[in-house]
Amino acid sequence: MRPVYLDNNATTRVDPDVVEAMLPYFTDQFGNPSSAHAFGASVGAAMKKARRQLQALIGAQFDDEITFTSGGTESDNAAILSALEVTPDRTEIVTSVVEHPAVLTLCAHLEQVRRVKVHRIPVDRRGRLDLDAYKAALSPRVAIVSVMWANNETGTIFPVAKLAELAKEIGALFHTDAVQVVGKLPMDLKSTAIDMMSLSGHKLHGPKGIGALWIRRGVHFRSMIKGGHQQHDRRAGTENTPGIVGLGTAAELALKFLDDATTRVKSLRDRLEDGILQRIPNTCVTGDPMERLPNTANISFEHTESDGIPHLLNRVGIACSSGSACTSGSMDPSHVLSAMKVPHGAVRFSFARDNNEEDVERVLEVMPAIVEKLRGSTGSRPRGRSPEGVRSDLCLSGKRTGCRS
Amino acid sequence: MRPVYLDNNATTRVDPDVVEAMLPYFTDQFGNPSSAHAFGASVGAAMKKARRQLQALIGAQFDDEITFTSGGTESDNAAILSALEVTPDRTEIVTSVVEHPAVLTLCAHLEQVRRVKVHRIPVDRRGRLDLDAYKAALSPRVAIVSVMWANNETGTIFPVAKLAELAKEIGALFHTDAVQVVGKLPMDLKSTAIDMMSLSGHKLHGPKGIGALWIRRGVHFRSMIKGGHQQHDRRAGTENTPGIVGLGTAAELALKFLDDATTRVKSLRDRLEDGILQRIPNTCVTGDPMERLPNTANISFEHTESDGIPHLLNRVGIACSSGSACTSGSMDPSHVLSAMKVPHGAVRFSFARDNNEEDVERVLEVMPAIVEKLRGSTGSRPRGRSPEGVRSDLCLSGKRTGCRS
Ligand SMILES: Cc1ncc(COP(=O)(O)O)c(C=O)c1O
Ligand SMILES: Cc1ncc(COP(=O)(O)O)c(C=O)c1O
Repeated sequence: MRPVYLDNNATTRVDPDVVEAMLPYFTDQFGNPSSAHAFGASVGAAMKKARRQLQALIGAQFDDEITFTSGGTESDNAAILSALEVTPDRTEIVTSVVEHPAVLTLCAHLEQVRRVKVHRIPVDRRGRLDLDAYKAALSPRVAIVSVMWANNETGTIFPVAKLAELAKEIGALFHTDAVQVVGKLPMDLKSTAIDMMSLSGHKLHGPKGIGALWIRRGVHFRSMIKGGHQQHDRRAGTENTPGIVGLGTAAELALKFLDDATTRVKSLRDRLEDGILQRIPNTCVTGDPMERLPNTANISFEHTESDGIPHLLNRVGIACSSGSACTSGSMDPSHVLSAMKVPHGAVRFSFARDNNEEDVERVLEVMPAIVEKLRGSTGSRPRGRSPEGVRSDLCLSGKRTGCRS
Repeated sequence: MRPVYLDNNATTRVDPDVVEAMLPYFTDQFGNPSSAHAFGASVGAAMKKARRQLQALIGAQFDDEITFTSGGTESDNAAILSALEVTPDRTEIVTSVVEHPAVLTLCAHLEQVRRVKVHRIPVDRRGRLDLDAYKAALSPRVAIVSVMWANNETGTIFPVAKLAELAKEIGALFHTDAVQVVGKLPMDLKSTAIDMMSLSGHKLHGPKGIGALWIRRGVHFRSMIKGGHQQHDRRAGTENTPGIVGLGTAAELALKFLDDATTRVKSLRDRLEDGILQRIPNTCVTGDPMERLPNTANISFEHTESDGIPHLLNRVGIACSSGSACTSGSMDPSHVLSAMKVPHGAVRFSFARDNNEEDVERVLEVMPAIVEKLRGSTGSRPRGRSPEGVRSDLCLSGKRTGCRS
């Protein structure tokens, strides 16, 4: 049976068209773009094209605002370190408790080894940022705000356009980790106050090992990796030309499939959520019901361990995850779900354009038995729910107890 | 006519077998190696294999001593920054004046923004390190010595095994940038006192955007790029699995072709040098005549500008360079040749296993006219030299004036 891959927030399958586009740059146009001879020159044009393709996808005003990096983690690190370097009189960072480790680990390090103060803005039970706490943290001491556009575990979308406006008022740079958003939602960076944005190729059917940092024209920037003068001194090291061409092609395809991502893919995700909530009692969807990535379902199953379901699904050829890939394998509970106070086993199913209805049916078919097995035979199995009202049946804070019903 | 590529120190053509090995990891085994499910697991084994392939090429004792990076520049940066972090009471760096910008630019930055003192050891006219100055710079204040194994512009090889022993005596870490050596010379790291070594995939017929830092077991190391727990916390970010598999395959092929690199490739290089020195007066080979990479010819042509020859060669489909790729395009004179006090136009021809005798003949055919054109008709053209004695006719310091004859 064809395996079912529902872990697209961890990584995506490279589109065969992307591979096709990359191939000539390995063995044919293999020159170093910095070389003055013909082998180098042709490659420069290919990089320019890739920048344009990305520019179109993210709605950037200029293609030279794009600096290629080795991935999302490097982009996040580079953005934050640059901000501290270009504004040495500002020594604070504002971020959120639910950022990716690429931001949080760096921040913890900076707190430890430099005189940097980090404000980590909390979220509520739906994963929504505490706006009052955010505003309170903003001051002229802040060098950079780094708040993700959407969360990799729950898909919750933060109001980054608004957050960026607020950061601008106090003269801080605003960076957003949009690794999970690029290719999933339309974007028009030029109409926002965002200063820098990270993205990663392998999250949008591009290759691993390539990413980009978008840096608005006019924003001062200092390279994290120091060396040669590549990419206008913004990122030293011989450019990964096949990767860059691959990322450009992936961006062009993502733009083409953007409608599919926000409609068909979303309806697959919704169908899975509805199906699970109908069939299996004591389940709920975590995250913000209103502002959520169209491809991500994070479902919590009361009375299960978080690794149990992915483990048993894997045995029948279905890939999904508990938490993010970079923390799975470790025994730590997800910092995102802890921050949201989601107490029990949560499973993330993340879709992409290569998924179809059959994939959803396969999961729905096997899930009831798996959950029953994990919950054991203790206690009577609560009744399932009617289709109506299930969509609003999210894990809620406050008085409603959708999660526990 | 088939173009002639003699700029292999800038970058190499990816071996088709390397591309072949990479392909499944784009579209088939595309999982995130950190994922717990089947899509992730198979990729872990492939990364292990790649580490083993590299281990064999460089003579490392353990495969887990290898950390994959995005290339040579990142590896160099990571090694130096880690050393400063793990020994905060040591604040000096020893390096050479002829290092790659990946080391020199970082060192200049550290001098500027941190309280780091950098000793840049000079070289003589043959590009040989001043050993007395080196010894004098070593003290218990030195956190790390970073001296390249071989120079990218001249091919001059430094006695890194000996230098590492000396560094060890004062308790400093010893790092070497071996980007130009891996795959060109046999290596047995486990029998040396070297602590860390950088390499880059695209210099050995592997892909761009992947490299490695070898870190001897027992050496404390702190990741430069912070984030998830990938690679045992030594390099955060989703692993570039196709790149890693490609680098592993490139390493296996390099080991297989190592004899070819030190014999046939060397004889092509020698034939080119001899041919040019015989045919064209007022030329000499720069670099150490005894200790030189077998693939690199750096020839200086009196009375020419350094960019003139590569430019005219390019017009007839021959790629070579003046200086290194990452400084070409800029108008700066090569810092390496300046340090060696080579006063006039030098051209680097760098070979690899895909070159053949025809390539050499093509260059020899066109060179005399090109040089004559550049030198103009001013003055009488000095006589060429007899084949005998040409091989020792290197740019020399002191009394011999091979360079000016
Ligand atoms: C939100 C977010 N940021 C950053 C990253 C890191 O990207 P990469 O693994 O390409 O370095 C990821 C994925 O791993 C992510 O989901
Ligand atoms: C000696 C040396 N070190 C470091 C580098 C940098 O490697 P990369 O371009 O892969 O970052 C190069 C080549 O560019 C080199 O020749």
